Amino acid sequence: MGAAKSKRVPRAVREQQMLDAAVRTFARRGYRAASMDEIAEGAGVSKPLVYLYLNSKEELFSRVIRRESAALVAAVTAAVEPGAAADRQLWSGLKGFFAHTAERPDGWAVLHQQARTQGEPFAVEVAAMRAEIVRFVTVLIGAAAKEAGCDGELADREVAGLAHALVGAAESLAEWANARTADGTSAFGVSGERERPTAKETAATLMNFVWAGLGRLMAGERWAPGG
Amino acid sequence: MGAAKSKRVPRAVREQQMLDAAVRTFARRGYRAASMDEIAEGAGVSKPLVYLYLNSKEELFSRVIRRESAALVAAVTAAVEPGAAADRQLWSGLKGFFAHTAERPDGWAVLHQQARTQGEPFAVEVAAMRAEIVRFVTVLIGAAAKEAGCDGELADREVAGLAHALVGAAESLAEWANARTADGTSAFGVSGERERPTAKETAATLMNFVWAGLGRLMAGERWAPGG
Repeated sequence: MGAAKSKRVPRAVREQQMLDAAVRTFARRGYRAASMDEIAEGAGVSKPLVYLYLNSKEELFSRVIRRESAALVAAVTAAVEPGAAADRQLWSGLKGFFAHTAERPDGWAVLHQQARTQGEPFAVEVAAMRAEIVRFVTVLIGAAAKEAGCDGELADREVAGLAHALVGAAESLAEWANARTADGTSAFGVSGERERPTAKETAATLMNFVWAGLGRLMAGERWAPGG
Repeated sequence: MGAAKSKRVPRAVREQQMLDAAVRTFARRGYRAASMDEIAEGAGVSKPLVYLYLNSKEELFSRVIRRESAALVAAVTAAVEPGAAADRQLWSGLKGFFAHTAERPDGWAVLHQQARTQGEPFAVEVAAMRAEIVRFVTVLIGAAAKEAGCDGELADREVAGLAHALVGAAESLAEWANARTADGTSAFGVSGERERPTAKETAATLMNFVWAGLGRLMAGERWAPGG
């Protein structure tokens, strides 16, 4: 049935359906255990057609990584208001990030959990995307320090460290907020933590935390080991 | 030479040497690409002796994960001063974490980058260790809120979110601080970021950030989208 149906669908559309099925399968099974049979079935096509269009499992995985990376960067970029104050840019970027990862939890799982550790050439593509986001956040924190008139207070290396901390915090929160049990249902509601937080709530938790911390750092306040 | 030499060394000592070599190889090559030949050579023993003592690559990897997880949890636990104020416990725990990951970058790479995504049963062991650390941090943040007399200000779910954010930030910072180029040298000094930060500097960057942010959150301050 799948093979007959596939003849009427343009190749570009069919390829996106294959990539959609591949994202689901890679996210749930992992790259190594994912089978081309399951991906073909998920896309409603024959396995030979998947090979004809996308060549190999490696190439399919590369295409998935590139598509999901581009979608994530596009979502964050579109969310940010260029020219706004640094805090507003950070807030809108965080909202865009958490909204996108909540909408596409499988894409996020492939980028965050699968692609980074499958060696070359996959890890390099995700590392390049992550480095781009870290650079963007570094610039925002630097700009915020400048707006607050205290760019001397925060050394460059500390700004770079804070950007890495913020990106890691966002990744960990996205993983937590989208946690799923083995049967594919939400991990919230079974673990006693009640409902899954919304993307905006998650963004607000992190933004409050980050901005309050940066505000004090820029004011020259430091935590000191007390009695 | 290795096989002859191995006869004089007690089994327990020899096994630790094999695990040491395995950690290096898994961290550098990844689990799949790591070869038992390289591990045997690194330990200065014959490959059959590695199989005799540790059975299979899967079991070797499991043993490495268990040893490195236990060492990390022990290092953090030993660093924390029980009964101290929450901020002091967090500070000493962070110092312990960054000191340990700086001393054992290969062990950290195996736990953080390899084990989490190699499927069952490896991912489960690392997830259990991570959950234990998140629980500990959740308790500390809850205790800090209580000490500050504002446990009503921070909802339980927000405390859980902050703990996940903090753990993710620490993981990302440890990865950054221990970053290595492909040839095994420090990534600092080539990327224009100068020297590698010390464990204490990294802990201080995160502690300042976290504590200042928590302080403001507990005082009821929230970031609000301005004009």
